[in-house]
Formats: sequence, C-alpha cells, structure tokens
Amino acid sequence: MSAEATGPNKAVHVISRPEGMVSVDNFAVVEVDEPTAPTAEAPVQLKLEHVSVDPYMRGRMRDAKSYIPPFALGEPGAGGVVARVVAVADDGETAGLAAGDLVVGMLPWVLRQNARPDGLTKVDEAVLGGASSSLLLGVLGLTGLTALLPIEKFSQPEAGKVAFVSGAAGAVGSVAGAVLKAKGCTVYGSAGSDEKCAIAQADCGFDAVFNYKTVGSPGEGLDSVLDGKAIDIYYDNVGGEMLDAVLARMAPNGVIICCGAISQYNKKPEELYGLKNYFNIIGRSLSVHGFIVTNWANEFPAAIGRLAGMLQAGQIPVKETVREGFESVPAAFVDLFKGANVGKMIVSKL
Amino acid sequence: MSAEATGPNKAVHVISRPEGMVSVDNFAVVEVDEPTAPTAEAPVQLKLEHVSVDPYMRGRMRDAKSYIPPFALGEPGAGGVVARVVAVADDGETAGLAAGDLVVGMLPWVLRQNARPDGLTKVDEAVLGGASSSLLLGVLGLTGLTALLPIEKFSQPEAGKVAFVSGAAGAVGSVAGAVLKAKGCTVYGSAGSDEKCAIAQADCGFDAVFNYKTVGSPGEGLDSVLDGKAIDIYYDNVGGEMLDAVLARMAPNGVIICCGAISQYNKKPEELYGLKNYFNIIGRSLSVHGFIVTNWANEFPAAIGRLAGMLQAGQIPVKETVREGFESVPAAFVDLFKGANVGKMIVSKL
Repeated sequence: MSAEATGPNKAVHVISRPEGMVSVDNFAVVEVDEPTAPTAEAPVQLKLEHVSVDPYMRGRMRDAKSYIPPFALGEPGAGGVVARVVAVADDGETAGLAAGDLVVGMLPWVLRQNARPDGLTKVDEAVLGGASSSLLLGVLGLTGLTALLPIEKFSQPEAGKVAFVSGAAGAVGSVAGAVLKAKGCTVYGSAGSDEKCAIAQADCGFDAVFNYKTVGSPGEGLDSVLDGKAIDIYYDNVGGEMLDAVLARMAPNGVIICCGAISQYNKKPEELYGLKNYFNIIGRSLSVHGFIVTNWANEFPAAIGRLAGMLQAGQIPVKETVREGFESVPAAFVDLFKGANVGKMIVSKL
Repeated sequence: MSAEATGPNKAVHVISRPEGMVSVDNFAVVEVDEPTAPTAEAPVQLKLEHVSVDPYMRGRMRDAKSYIPPFALGEPGAGGVVARVVAVADDGETAGLAAGDLVVGMLPWVLRQNARPDGLTKVDEAVLGGASSSLLLGVLGLTGLTALLPIEKFSQPEAGKVAFVSGAAGAVGSVAGAVLKAKGCTVYGSAGSDEKCAIAQADCGFDAVFNYKTVGSPGEGLDSVLDGKAIDIYYDNVGGEMLDAVLARMAPNGVIICCGAISQYNKKPEELYGLKNYFNIIGRSLSVHGFIVTNWANEFPAAIGRLAGMLQAGQIPVKETVREGFESVPAAFVDLFKGANVGKMIVSKL
C-alpha cells in the first residue's frame, strides 16, 4: 500500500447547483470512512490514481434530464479515473481483477472505495511504454476517442479540405486538430491565449490559430486565418458566437461535428447565445452531428489501437495540465471554464 | 397555337429588393417583344403553361451569395415551369424536342420565349393519366422530390417512430407527412389555420395537427399533440421558434431534415430568431441535415417513379392552390408568405 493511503479517506461532494459560473464553493472535500474489506457485493477495493475533470460534467451539476443523470447534492461527484486495485474479496466475482492491477472506469470521487468490476477495464501497462497512466484519461482514453471517432464517422477528411477546430489547445481540440492534420486537411483553430495558439501550432499540427480573446469578433478571427477559404469540416468545442460565425463560412456539403459548447455551459438560460446563421444548413447542404462517445463503447478497443499507433508515429501530441492532490479536484474542474488548461486537465498524486 | 397566344407577350420582372416582407410592388408585369423565330442559339420556342412559385425564391430576391445567384433587378424572375414547345429551329440542336411536346424546366418568367434544350425535360403525357400537368411542378416534380429524397437519405422512417412536419398543409409538408405515414411513422404536424389542420389530417395522413397561430407557443402546441412522446424525425419547413421548440423535444439519435425556414425569410437581419436549444444536438446525439434537391438530379427519374407509384396507390395527396393568369405570378408568390396556399401554389391558364 502506498504511503498516501495512510492519510484519511476523502470524497469530493457536490453540495450546491451553480447558477451561472460554477465555483469551488459548489463542492466540498470531506473526510469519509475507510472502505470495509471488499465484499461480494462490491468486491474490488480501489485507490484512485488519476482523476479526469471534463467540461461535460458542468451539465451534470444542473438538475435537468440529460443523457446522464445529474449529480445528487451531498453525494460524491463522479467521472473518468485511473485506479489501482488494492484488494479483492475472496468470495467475489471480480472479472479477473487482482490486487495490483491498474484499471480505468467511471467512478465516484472517493479516494479509496469498493466497487463492482463491471465498467472497469484492466489496463495492460506495457502498452503505455513507460508513459504516465494519465494518458488513459487523455489521448488513449475518452478524450482521444471523442476526437477520433466522430471525425471518422461523420466527415471525410482528406488533402485539399479545410478544417477548423475551436478550443484548439484543449483536451479534445488538440487531438482533433492533430487527427485532421494527419488525414491531410489544412487545419485552422482558435484558442484563448497567445501561448495556447503558439502551442497548438508548434505541437498539434495546426496551420494557423487565432486568439479569440484579442480579435474584434469570432468572424474577424476566422477571416484572418481562412483568407477567403470556406470550411469543409468544423470540430466544435465551444458553441455560441463562434459556431454562428463558422456557419456563415462553411463550404457547400460541409460537416459540423458538435462536441461541446463550453462558451455556454455557465450561462443562465436568459444569457444563452441564439444562433442566427442556421439558414446556411439549408443553403449550403450542411450536415450537423451531435454524438455521445460512450454510445460507441464497442468500438473503443480498436479505436484506442489506432490512437496508440498515431501517438507512436508522432502524429498526435500529448498535452496535459496536471494538478496535484485529491483536494484539487474542484479547483481543477472550475479552472476548465477559465481556460487554465492546455490539453487534458488531470488531477494526480492523490 | 392557343387562343391566349394572341395577346401581347409578357414578362414578370423583379424591380426592387424587399426589406422585410416581400410585396407585389417588388415586381412588375411588363409587355415584351414576341420572340423571333427560333434560332440555332435558342432553338426551342416555348409557351409557359404552368408557373411554380416557391418560398426558396425569396432568397433569390436578396443580393447575397447563395447556392443560386440572386435575381437581377429589371430582369425576369425565374423558376420551375411547365411549357409547351411551339416551334423549333430547322437548323437547331433541339435534343429531340419537337413542336407540340410538353416540357418541364427552370425558365425565366417570360410567357413566350426561345430557349436552349439543355435543362428541359420532355414529359411523357401518358404518365399523367389525364391529371393536370401542373402535378409536374408538385407531387411529381421538385416538390415531391424535395419531400421524398431527404427522408429516404437521412432518416429511417418505420413503424414505432414519431415524425413531426411543420407546414403540414404546405406544398412540401403535405407530401412529406404522407411519405412518413406511408413508411409507418406516427406523424404530427403544424399548420396556420384550423382549415389547414383539418385538411392535413383528413387527406394527408397526419395523425394530429395543431394550429400554430392559436396555441400559446410552439412548445405548447407540440406538447398537445406529442403527449409526452419525443420526436424521432423532424421535417422542418419553417425554422425559427418552431425549430427551437422541436430541438427541446427530440428523441436520442433523432434526425432533423432542414428543408426551409419560411418563418424567417421576410425578416430583417436584426429580427432573425436565434436558436437557443442547439445544445440538444450534442446531448441527444442528433443529426441535422440541409440539402439542395437539385444536387441529386441524377436520381430524379427513379424517384419520380416511386412518387408516381405512391400517388397511384393513394398514399400521397394531390393538393394544389391554383391562381389564374400570368399577371397573377407576383401575388401568388407573395401570398405564399401569408399562408394563402394549401399544398402547391401554381399559376395556370397563362
């Protein structure tokens, strides 16, 4: 057992629902009982090693019907984690998991806990080739899959096509841009600081990236990189005004992949941006696709293999912003909406 | 030569661009010279028999880049017509057309004119089985194709699915509803008068249709017919607030076919309705498809065969609003935006 395991057990609870911008005050880090010895009902004892914080979780803080239920107040938050198996119940059905195994899955934000084995995937650590297992939450996990699969399914990226990715230096955007580039597209992007723009260009294969905070408007920023060209493929992470400006600059038969709308997640209903340029969906024969990546779970193993191949070939970047300590989970999550991350935001050294 | 041909030749010119609601004052019916004898350059002399007026033409009155160029001021408007070949040039390449033939095509709004044969399609009048050749502009023409082809290409209509069609009593909507019904869906709709609602239910196969002008809001109208069900397929003819309300009521993996946005065509830019519920594209894995039916021209002959079969089987209705006289073209067009038509608006007895 690691040294950290000797401190008190902890959980990150959601204690209130944000109105507008989410805050660390919507969470509480609380001490909780140590798990009992694992039982037949929850036969796998785990200690979290890396916690993923992701923009989509903002939706779960809302008390509204969605594709996943809202977080309950006074209960732990939850999401993607990498965890180490500490012990297993002698009489439990552990799906082959044993003490010492590394797993990925969706789990409550409780440092040490007993869990059922379904939904946990054992990791072959050799695949990592010495890299941090946090990659399993990033390029080699849901983040990478979220970038790769809709591009493969909904668009035909190829040489001669123009792609645009908003949130170019973000977790998903940095991979989406690299995937589109690897498939031959000219790839433009937007990001929220000059430093992020430089990183996306230098490390993620973007041909040009503009800082949306310093241009006069999203349309002006787009025009500065597009130089009269139209967009064949838009990978949208931000929604709102940027999406509207892109709708006015799409090429005939263009494809828009709607991954996220981070610009809108912390807005009150009356503050939401209303899209005005959706007529172009008709006039330019566009297709607009939403998706929930977990609906394609049966394709994950093969797709992770493709991502690993691209990673090994140097075609996709490893970009992480790592915060340390389990107590950092709330601040790391809130900072996503302040643009504090380059690449995947991870909380480690728990 | 028909009796009418003895009157002066005429054209309907577009003389000004509307700001906001289009008006008959944006057009002028003018006398023009008789065509010369057909020449090698324009070897087919035609007289128009039926003129189609369609909502999409509002877009051509705007001086803006689109998938078809804007109408030029002081020049004839143009659109789908049925015309009779009056004469052909002795030395011209007429693609097999001869005097007496009936053709369909896109032509300028000039009563008698010489034209090139490319773009004209000769009609086998036997196919009509005695029905009015105006059907070639409606159910058996671009209107029917506009309803059928995107439903076939983008959605999987089948028993157990819920479809919704706005503009249910309109030219395209009445056929779209009938097609979706024939494929097994439960089909709901909206229309702009109680009479239209009754016609759509009685004649076009709709299970229930609400009058959007007498409900408190589009959402309220939708809830009244859906009774808690979600929409799998939305065939959108109106855009705006109705589209937004539908976005909030789509089922997971639902499909939206964007055919038109007639609620918005006559609005000034600052009056356009802004869509707020597009987040559901992500959260519910929706696909939204625009299209330009003429991009599928190579599929038209077979698709018209399918439409003719459905027509013969009584699965799709023949709904026309016929105005008489070439001078009626501007008013017929303007009346489209006042909801004056049930089914296809046609100008005949030219």
